Amino acid sequence: MTFHTDPTLLHPVTSRKGRISLVGAGPGAADLLTFRAVDRMRVADVIFYDRLVEPEVLAMSGPRPKRVFVGKEVGAHSWPQDRINRTITAAALSGQQVVRLKSGDPSVFGRGCEEIAAARAFGIEVEVIPGITAAASLCQPLTERGLTDRLVLATATCRSGDLTSGLADLARPGTTLAIYMGMQRLSDVAAELSAAGLAPDTEVVITANASRANEVTLVSTLGGFVVDAPAKGIRNPAIIFVRVAKTGAMAPLQSQLTIRCDT
Amino acid sequence: MTFHTDPTLLHPVTSRKGRISLVGAGPGAADLLTFRAVDRMRVADVIFYDRLVEPEVLAMSGPRPKRVFVGKEVGAHSWPQDRINRTITAAALSGQQVVRLKSGDPSVFGRGCEEIAAARAFGIEVEVIPGITAAASLCQPLTERGLTDRLVLATATCRSGDLTSGLADLARPGTTLAIYMGMQRLSDVAAELSAAGLAPDTEVVITANASRANEVTLVSTLGGFVVDAPAKGIRNPAIIFVRVAKTGAMAPLQSQLTIRCDT
Repeated sequence: MTFHTDPTLLHPVTSRKGRISLVGAGPGAADLLTFRAVDRMRVADVIFYDRLVEPEVLAMSGPRPKRVFVGKEVGAHSWPQDRINRTITAAALSGQQVVRLKSGDPSVFGRGCEEIAAARAFGIEVEVIPGITAAASLCQPLTERGLTDRLVLATATCRSGDLTSGLADLARPGTTLAIYMGMQRLSDVAAELSAAGLAPDTEVVITANASRANEVTLVSTLGGFVVDAPAKGIRNPAIIFVRVAKTGAMAPLQSQLTIRCDT
Repeated sequence: MTFHTDPTLLHPVTSRKGRISLVGAGPGAADLLTFRAVDRMRVADVIFYDRLVEPEVLAMSGPRPKRVFVGKEVGAHSWPQDRINRTITAAALSGQQVVRLKSGDPSVFGRGCEEIAAARAFGIEVEVIPGITAAASLCQPLTERGLTDRLVLATATCRSGDLTSGLADLARPGTTLAIYMGMQRLSDVAAELSAAGLAPDTEVVITANASRANEVTLVSTLGGFVVDAPAKGIRNPAIIFVRVAKTGAMAPLQSQLTIRCDT
């Protein structure tokens, strides 16, 4: 976690610095925003938002704030993290109330630490407003008493240079695994889960675009999802769910628990 | 997951069954409710709520719904799970729109599966409205790129008969552990973390009453928290946080990342 101080940022600072609010945009549906998140959006001077933030979520801000897209398009890193850090920091130093709107929950993945460190290096006040993380927005239980007593939120896309994500360590009895951003690493994910000793017929459920109008769920197996997911056209944002029961047989996740969310 | 059909429930059913919404009340602060949660609360006929649901959260429902406490007081199980299941199911069968308001996120812990199964046994429509889980409401990052790439939500209070919670399996490099409901099992938690090979000076952070006016945080160590937490008067609801860095040294959680939440 490094912050490169940029001389261009060291312009005269107004008498009152702005605040940076890292705000959780939730998984996509606007009504899954919290009241606190919308409050911060409405009083902001500027909102810097990601690629995965839906238009209807952004619309909850009302007309006041300026809206600036700082997303990372796949294959086109127009907004690398350092540039985002510099931009939001400069806005706050100029006295603006800044909302950094991040899809899901800013406390989980999403490089919130780096943006916080950048801001604090200039003494800017930072706060984090939690959001609903995508795994929770499936609207079905992720733990089940006596069978799965813990939930692991993991990312398949670790920092470059990391050979494995460490998923194999976590596929332990009694665990529900929710693996984020795995669509471009399907073979690696499958290999790690197999290395953990899971059988090829272990149920694997993949949900893309959770809580959005185009939400889609694939029910597959450990032996099949590497082929099934691309065949169904499933892409990120998606979550791969695997349940490893604590004891005995486990009813399939989908047949047992799938229920509809009325939005 | 069993459901005991109760003959007293088999009374004549109205032409239209009600719906049961399992609604996440979030960690405590009313403005951490989602819009969808409050929408369901406002149109409900009856809200069945837990011990940990704060009065200001309940007040978001407005005057319409009847409010029924179904909490489990420590040492006084006036509302065992079977009775809760029967009660909410009977209300829906009588045609009422039912909100089952559960602290945090109903998809994580909280026995949501059992309430869903009970309702579905009668063909009652059920939905789950997610909430902010307590760990996310600390308003600080729980993962940090390159150091902790996954978050484990675990409960220290498993079903009776389970000798260990399996925490030792999960304290792997690259993991942030958030252990719920551990205040009555401090020694067991410490023993499991030690068995995982964590050093006695590993930082352990405990936060009680996250997001509430009486939120309190203790910064301690693996070797010390069993004594420190009771000495500080920390009780459930509380979360025990432990970070196991992936590589190299790790700055302390609190000094590095603690930031204020403005509520």
